[in-house]
Amino acid sequence: MQTEFEISTRGAGLYAFTDDVARWLSGGGDGVLTLMVRHTSASLLIQENADPDVQVDLRRFFERFVPRGDDPAMAWLTHVAEGPDDMPAHIKAAVLPVSLQIPVAGGRMRLGMWQGIYLFEHRDAPHQRRVAAAFSGL
Amino acid sequence: MQTEFEISTRGAGLYAFTDDVARWLSGGGDGVLTLMVRHTSASLLIQENADPDVQVDLRRFFERFVPRGDDPAMAWLTHVAEGPDDMPAHIKAAVLPVSLQIPVAGGRMRLGMWQGIYLFEHRDAPHQRRVAAAFSGL
Amino acid sequence: MQTEFEISTRGAGLYAFTDDVARWLSGGGDGVLTLMVRHTSASLLIQENADPDVQVDLRRFFERFVPRGDDPAMAWLTHVAEGPDDMPAHIKAAVLPVSLQIPVAGGRMRLGMWQGIYLFEHRDAPHQRRVAAAFSGL
Repeated sequence: MQTEFEISTRGAGLYAFTDDVARWLSGGGDGVLTLMVRHTSASLLIQENADPDVQVDLRRFFERFVPRGDDPAMAWLTHVAEGPDDMPAHIKAAVLPVSLQIPVAGGRMRLGMWQGIYLFEHRDAPHQRRVAAAFSGL
Repeated sequence: MQTEFEISTRGAGLYAFTDDVARWLSGGGDGVLTLMVRHTSASLLIQENADPDVQVDLRRFFERFVPRGDDPAMAWLTHVAEGPDDMPAHIKAAVLPVSLQIPVAGGRMRLGMWQGIYLFEHRDAPHQRRVAAAFSGL
Repeated sequence: MQTEFEISTRGAGLYAFTDDVARWLSGGGDGVLTLMVRHTSASLLIQENADPDVQVDLRRFFERFVPRGDDPAMAWLTHVAEGPDDMPAHIKAAVLPVSLQIPVAGGRMRLGMWQGIYLFEHRDAPHQRRVAAAFSGL
């Protein structure tokens, strides 16, 4: 059982798609869900789904951790032809998850009560992001 | 085949639970083990199991990388209501693994000889942490 | 279906092995591939396979993010007996992936068109690195 989730992004930040995944799995049995983002400038993330400030702070932290290519602190970058947000996006995509696995019981993901699934977009421009999904029954 | 491991933590740091996992898998066959921590302020980690200094240094590195919320360097944080260790814990949980997969042969994890499995607690207060586990036979 | 990939490294940097994995899977069916590096001073990475400058910048970023043990910024390290590149290697191995999962359809990995699979070596000296692989059919 495989599918692909499509997520339209409008600039850097977190985009929740927990409900899309839950809907796809519902009615199924026990197994393991695999998600893999098919891009090198966006990431997957399981994070707190309660206070939206957490998402603001996560985004700000990564902006400070990996400044844009036109920041003096990044003057050593060589891959700059695709814009000041491109190489920092690849670096964030190296540090944050490209694939996630979630145990599933009775068609429901065994997430903790505060956990949601997000696509973390690292580019400025709108993108259509694709996440490959596979469900392996136990 | 699914289970849940419970790990009692007493402050930030690494807590080994390799032996609990090995015991659960023993006597089984070939497959893949999935582990997923059900929290957004603790992480999973596969790291060196030999010199305890490695664990001390890992913890210190992450304390410097993501200082506490009452550190002047973190004055930009907005999610501060749950204490100075809360938002830094979410950031560490974004950077470090939430899920791990380990190939298993003849009921034994194919870990390298220096690899152990750890829960990395990011909060100050004692917590009861839960790790969802699933074993998929090949 | 399990195997082990061997990668010979000659110092820190990214070593592509996408083709070895593709060859092993070819002719197979639908499922999920699991890769796990059996070391605590090297990582796995899915990253851009087009412009080699991306790999140069990734390596440089991590050299700055986690300086060598003989850098004054790292004077707080305690695990220093195995050389100035050892503890920084463990830290990079904590931050970057130890395991990856890739959905497979008709014997082909569902990678995006710009994604390649790399071993990221963190040590200076040549090493023979082993990556455990398992393929679970759906």
